[in-house]
Amino acid sequence: MSGNGLLVVLSAPSGTGKGTLVKLLREQDENIRLSVSATTREPRKGEVDGRDYFFKTVEEFENMIKNNELIEWVKYCNNYYGTPREFIDRSLSLGHDVLLEIEVEGAANIKEMFPESVLVFVLPPSFDELKKRIIERGTEKSEVIQMRLEQAKKELRYISRYDYVVINDKIEDAVQDIRSIINAEKLKYKRNRNILAQIGICKQEGCIDD
Amino acid sequence: MSGNGLLVVLSAPSGTGKGTLVKLLREQDENIRLSVSATTREPRKGEVDGRDYFFKTVEEFENMIKNNELIEWVKYCNNYYGTPREFIDRSLSLGHDVLLEIEVEGAANIKEMFPESVLVFVLPPSFDELKKRIIERGTEKSEVIQMRLEQAKKELRYISRYDYVVINDKIEDAVQDIRSIINAEKLKYKRNRNILAQIGICKQEGCIDD
Repeated sequence: MSGNGLLVVLSAPSGTGKGTLVKLLREQDENIRLSVSATTREPRKGEVDGRDYFFKTVEEFENMIKNNELIEWVKYCNNYYGTPREFIDRSLSLGHDVLLEIEVEGAANIKEMFPESVLVFVLPPSFDELKKRIIERGTEKSEVIQMRLEQAKKELRYISRYDYVVINDKIEDAVQDIRSIINAEKLKYKRNRNILAQIGICKQEGCIDD
Repeated sequence: MSGNGLLVVLSAPSGTGKGTLVKLLREQDENIRLSVSATTREPRKGEVDGRDYFFKTVEEFENMIKNNELIEWVKYCNNYYGTPREFIDRSLSLGHDVLLEIEVEGAANIKEMFPESVLVFVLPPSFDELKKRIIERGTEKSEVIQMRLEQAKKELRYISRYDYVVINDKIEDAVQDIRSIINAEKLKYKRNRNILAQIGICKQEGCIDD
């Protein structure tokens, strides 16, 4: 990973409250940049192209794949989803932390390509609560709700691949948890091998006597 | 490690401001318990037996070693230092986080015995600042100051064994950093393998369909 930015991958089953969580995180932490995914799925009511997703036709999306413009992509619920490469590379090199909201297979791909990325799985306080939230959102037809619930169950199987688990019960606590994770990860020695030189104790990594 | 408590090992060269850091941490986080070390060194002015250290004679200390009452001990600057076992076991099993302030060799021993412990190295903002702080403390003779500076340099060699590095420049930031580390560590999936069962999504670790 270039620069000092942290790549934070956030996965959460539908109805976990991911949208609000990401909104608050961005409001509270100016250094966070949100990666916007490309997709071929239909925009939901209120969704804006370029803000919520880059909405693409199947042909456009397949061209992005061919041109290597995506760092990962998957087909899921009969639609393509993918992560544009350029924005992430640029943001990390500028020292920004990049938040990537993607589903579980995409997350596994990211971890493979960026081993220093941090994977966070957001859970609802209970499965009943998850059902309730998906139904209350009311933007989906009943068969779509059922598909999303099944999908949520499938996604939960991937939880062991994640570095951290955050329960979104009280949203402010969940935001604070993710901010703690970002802060702590940046304090890891493995991300600061040059620290003694940085603070003027020595000139080279690892040495203290020069 | 029994219970859900986290064992946090804090090492910091003399003059890094460890004392104030620990004081503020304990004030801000009620769940933290401070392990008090046993030592054969002379009490400094203002130090209280049982609060700052358990001050022991060499004979008493060597008896504690024999009776397996210490989880680790070292001889350093011609004095014994060790960590009493019972307090730590009890606190962790009650779910408290235990803060252990020890020097670098002791820390390595702890990590070996408790692989799930978290090692944090606290650094001064610069080596010049470290010298200044040791000299300003003014409680030590000049040859002791020199010995402590040499010791600090030796301790810095161990930094790569630590999980996290915190720079104590602004004390409030350093306190916040350590609190982030504790919070984030508890959110790690490896410490929450039973999470899906805990929130009622399934009955057994790893399963989601039962």
